[in-house]
Amino acid sequence: MATAVYPGSFDPITLGHLDIIKRTAAVFDKVIIGVLINKSKQPLFSIEERVDLIKEVTRDIPNVEILSFNGLLIDFSDRMKADVIVRGIRAVSDFEYELMMAQTNKQLKANIETMFFATSAEYSFVSSSMIRELAAFGGDITQFVPEEVSKRVYEKFKQV
Amino acid sequence: MATAVYPGSFDPITLGHLDIIKRTAAVFDKVIIGVLINKSKQPLFSIEERVDLIKEVTRDIPNVEILSFNGLLIDFSDRMKADVIVRGIRAVSDFEYELMMAQTNKQLKANIETMFFATSAEYSFVSSSMIRELAAFGGDITQFVPEEVSKRVYEKFKQV
Amino acid sequence: MATAVYPGSFDPITLGHLDIIKRTAAVFDKVIIGVLINKSKQPLFSIEERVDLIKEVTRDIPNVEILSFNGLLIDFSDRMKADVIVRGIRAVSDFEYELMMAQTNKQLKANIETMFFATSAEYSFVSSSMIRELAAFGGDITQFVPEEVSKRVYEKFKQV
Amino acid sequence: MATAVYPGSFDPITLGHLDIIKRTAAVFDKVIIGVLINKSKQPLFSIEERVDLIKEVTRDIPNVEILSFNGLLIDFSDRMKADVIVRGIRAVSDFEYELMMAQTNKQLKANIETMFFATSAEYSFVSSSMIRELAAFGGDITQFVPEEVSKRVYEKFKQV
Amino acid sequence: MATAVYPGSFDPITLGHLDIIKRTAAVFDKVIIGVLINKSKQPLFSIEERVDLIKEVTRDIPNVEILSFNGLLIDFSDRMKADVIVRGIRAVSDFEYELMMAQTNKQLKANIETMFFATSAEYSFVSSSMIRELAAFGGDITQFVPEEVSKRVYEKFKQV
Amino acid sequence: MATAVYPGSFDPITLGHLDIIKRTAAVFDKVIIGVLINKSKQPLFSIEERVDLIKEVTRDIPNVEILSFNGLLIDFSDRMKADVIVRGIRAVSDFEYELMMAQTNKQLKANIETMFFATSAEYSFVSSSMIRELAAFGGDITQFVPEEVSKRVYEKFKQV
Repeated sequence: MATAVYPGSFDPITLGHLDIIKRTAAVFDKVIIGVLINKSKQPLFSIEERVDLIKEVTRDIPNVEILSFNGLLIDFSDRMKADVIVRGIRAVSDFEYELMMAQTNKQLKANIETMFFATSAEYSFVSSSMIRELAAFGGDITQFVPEEVSKRVYEKFKQV
Repeated sequence: MATAVYPGSFDPITLGHLDIIKRTAAVFDKVIIGVLINKSKQPLFSIEERVDLIKEVTRDIPNVEILSFNGLLIDFSDRMKADVIVRGIRAVSDFEYELMMAQTNKQLKANIETMFFATSAEYSFVSSSMIRELAAFGGDITQFVPEEVSKRVYEKFKQV
Repeated sequence: MATAVYPGSFDPITLGHLDIIKRTAAVFDKVIIGVLINKSKQPLFSIEERVDLIKEVTRDIPNVEILSFNGLLIDFSDRMKADVIVRGIRAVSDFEYELMMAQTNKQLKANIETMFFATSAEYSFVSSSMIRELAAFGGDITQFVPEEVSKRVYEKFKQV
Repeated sequence: MATAVYPGSFDPITLGHLDIIKRTAAVFDKVIIGVLINKSKQPLFSIEERVDLIKEVTRDIPNVEILSFNGLLIDFSDRMKADVIVRGIRAVSDFEYELMMAQTNKQLKANIETMFFATSAEYSFVSSSMIRELAAFGGDITQFVPEEVSKRVYEKFKQV
Repeated sequence: MATAVYPGSFDPITLGHLDIIKRTAAVFDKVIIGVLINKSKQPLFSIEERVDLIKEVTRDIPNVEILSFNGLLIDFSDRMKADVIVRGIRAVSDFEYELMMAQTNKQLKANIETMFFATSAEYSFVSSSMIRELAAFGGDITQFVPEEVSKRVYEKFKQV
Repeated sequence: MATAVYPGSFDPITLGHLDIIKRTAAVFDKVIIGVLINKSKQPLFSIEERVDLIKEVTRDIPNVEILSFNGLLIDFSDRMKADVIVRGIRAVSDFEYELMMAQTNKQLKANIETMFFATSAEYSFVSSSMIRELAAFGGDITQFVPEEVSKRVYEKFKQV
C-alpha cells in the first residue's frame, strides 16, 4: 500500500492542483495533501481557510486526507510514513527547482522518493499567484479555479 | 495494486536505468520493463540480448518483469493493464520531450498516467549512447554500467 | 499593409499549424504560407499534396495564399515582399533554435522581422512527426489534425 | 489597420526597449507604449518621468503613442482596441514567463494576440535592473541606454 | 601568470563552493576569493565570519587569497589585476543569469574574461540558501558543508 | 604553465570559433586546437583543409598549435598533457550537452578540467552547419566567417 504526499501552499487551490490531486489519487492508495504553514509570507487565505477549501473541492475523492504542516517537507513526509512525494511540473524553470529539491530530499531520507506529473496542457499556465493578481484587479478567474474557490477569492478582495 | 511500465531501448542498460528500476519497484506493486523493438536503428545488442542482460542485473528485484514490445508505448501499456508509465529525467531537454510524449499519451488513453523520477545526481550524465561511444574508442565504462554489462559491451566491440 | 510569411514543412498540416495560421490572418493583412521543398528528406506527402491539403483546410480564411519554396526562407520572404516571418513556439527547445534562425535572418535582411506566437496550450504537444509516428502504428490522430487530413494520412499508411 | 501595445516598466528605457519599439513601429500601423504604474515597487523614475523619457527618445518615430496604465495589461489593451500585445524575449527564462502570461491573456480575451520579438543579440543582456545596479555603483551605462537617459540616471544617483 | 577571481556571498561556504575553489586553484596560478558585502540582505554570518570560515576550510590550498569587496565585481576584479572571473554553474537557470552577467562585464572591461565550471554532479543541488533553510528547521546539513562550517551554522541557529 | 585544448570539427572555422580561440590564448599559456576526425560524417572540408584554414586565420596568435585527432577527446587531452578543455557555449541546449560531456570526462580523468566561455553576443547565433546551409543556397556568409574562409566555402559549393 503506497502513500503519497502532495505538498503546497494552495493559496488558493486551483484547477491545476485539483487535476494533480485526482491523478495522484488514481495511482496511489492514499494521498495526503500537505498545506505548508509559511510564516514569512502574508497569505490571502489563512491556513484553516485553505485546508477547508481543499476539503470542500476534494470531498468526492475518498482516499484523500488534508493536513497542514510546518518545517521541512521531508520530515512531514517521514512522520506521515509516505513512500512518495508528488509534485506537478508546468515548465522547465519549475523542473530545475523541483529537481534540486528532490535530490536534497533523497539525500536526507533515501527511502522517500519524489515523483512528478506533467501538468495537463490546459492548466499549464495556471498558478495561485496569477489567480491572486488577476482577482486583485477584478479580472475573471472562474475558468482557473473551482467554483467554490472563485466566490471566496472575490469576497476576500471585497473585504480589502 | 498499481502496475508501472518502465520503457526504453536499454542498448545497453546503465546504472542510471537500474537506479530508476529499483526506485520504481519500491513504490509500485509491479514493474514491467518494456524493451522497445526499434527496427529503424541498428542496435549494439539484439532485442533478446538486451532482455537477457536486464534479467541478469535485476534478478534480485522480485516484482520486476521484462518484456519486449513493438509499436506504440501507450498500446503496450494498455495491454499490460498498467496504471502508470515511469520515465527518468536527467536534464531540461529530456524534460521537454518527455512532457510532449506524456501529454500525447494522456490524450490517447486518459486512464494511464505518466510519472517522472529525477535521475540521481551521480548518474545524471550517463546514457546508453555515451556508453557505446566510449566503448567504441576503448574508454573505461565500468563505473557507468553493471559489471555483467561492461564485459558484454567490450566483447561486442572486439567482435567488430 | 503588412504581409506575413508562415513557413514550414506541413507534412502534414496539424491543428496546431491551423491555429497559428488563423491568428496570423487576424493580425496581418496578408498571410503567405510557404511550404518548404526539402529534397534531402523523404516526406509522407508530396509537395503538391501538402499544398492542396493546406488549401483545403484554409479555404475559409480569405487573406491566405499558399506557395511552395526552395532555398533560403529569407530569400523567399524577400521575393514575397514580406514584412514579417511568423513562427509558432511550443517549447523552450523550439525557442532556442528559432532565436538563432531569427538572428541570422535579421543579419541577412534587416528589413524583414521574425515574430513568434506561443502555440495554444491545447496544441502545445502536437507536431507533424508525432502525427506520422502515431499513424504508422495505427494510433488515433483525429484529435490532432483537421478531419480532411486524418483521412489522407490513414490512406497513405494503407498504401505502404 | 493593426494596433500593437508594447507594455513595460521602462525604469528606465534601454537601447533594447528602443530596438523593439522601432521594429514594432515598422510592422504595425500604430504602437501604444504602455507604461505600467506599479504601486508596490519603489521606482527610480516616477511614472511621469518615465513617460517623458520615452517620448524624448521616440520623438522621431511617427506612429508611436505613450500612455501609462494601471491594473491588468489585457484590460488596458482592450480599452486601446489593440490587436496585438508585443513583447521582447531575451532568454529562455523570459520565454517561459511570457508564455504563461500570453496563454492567460488569450484565455481572458480571445481576440487580442500576444506576439514576440527576439531581442537583438547586441542587447540580449541589457535590462533596466542591470542599468540601475550598474549606475548605483558608478559603472558605465552609456552603451546600454540612449544618451538622454544616461544623463538622467546619473543625476538620480547623485541626488540620492 | 594567470589570476582568477572567484566571487560569491558564501553565506556559508558549501562543499560545492570548495570543489570549485580547488579546481580553480589547480588551473590558475593564483585564486582570489572575493566575498561580496551586500548591505541590502541580512546575512546569517557577518562578512568577517564568512572570510574566516573560508580561510579555515581552504588553509591547505597555497595559491588562494580571501578578500571581501563592495560595489561592482568587474571593478574589484580590475583592481586585483585578474585575468579571469570564475563561476560554477549548477543548472540551466544559473547559466542564463551568468551568461548575462558575463556579457555585461565583458562589455565593461574587454580584457577580463568570465569562465565557467560545471558543478560536480554530487554537489549540483547544494546551495547556501538551501543550507540555511535546512538548518533553520533542524535538518541535517553535515553532508553538504565542511565540518567546521556545520558546527558554526548550528551554533548560529541556537543563538536565534 | 597551463595548457588548454579547444576541440571541434571546425567545418569550417567561424568568427565565433576565432573569438573563443583568441580569448583562450589570452588566459592560458598554450592553446592546442584539436580538430576532430569524424569518419561517420561527410565533411565539407577534409581534415587537412580544416587544419590549414585554422592555421591561416590564427597565424597572428603565437601560443596556438593546431592538431587533428581521432578517438576520445579526453585521451587526446591526456596525451597533450592538457590541464583544461575549453568549450564555447552559445545557448542553453548547448549547455546541457556540454555539462554531460564535462561530467563524463571528469569521471574518466579527474585531473583534466572542462571550462566554458559564453560565446560573444554578436556570434551567439553563428554555427558551422548554418554557414554550410547558407552557402549551399548562395546566401551571404561573409559576416560570419573570416575572409579567407568565405572564399574557400564558396569555391567548394561551385565545385559541387
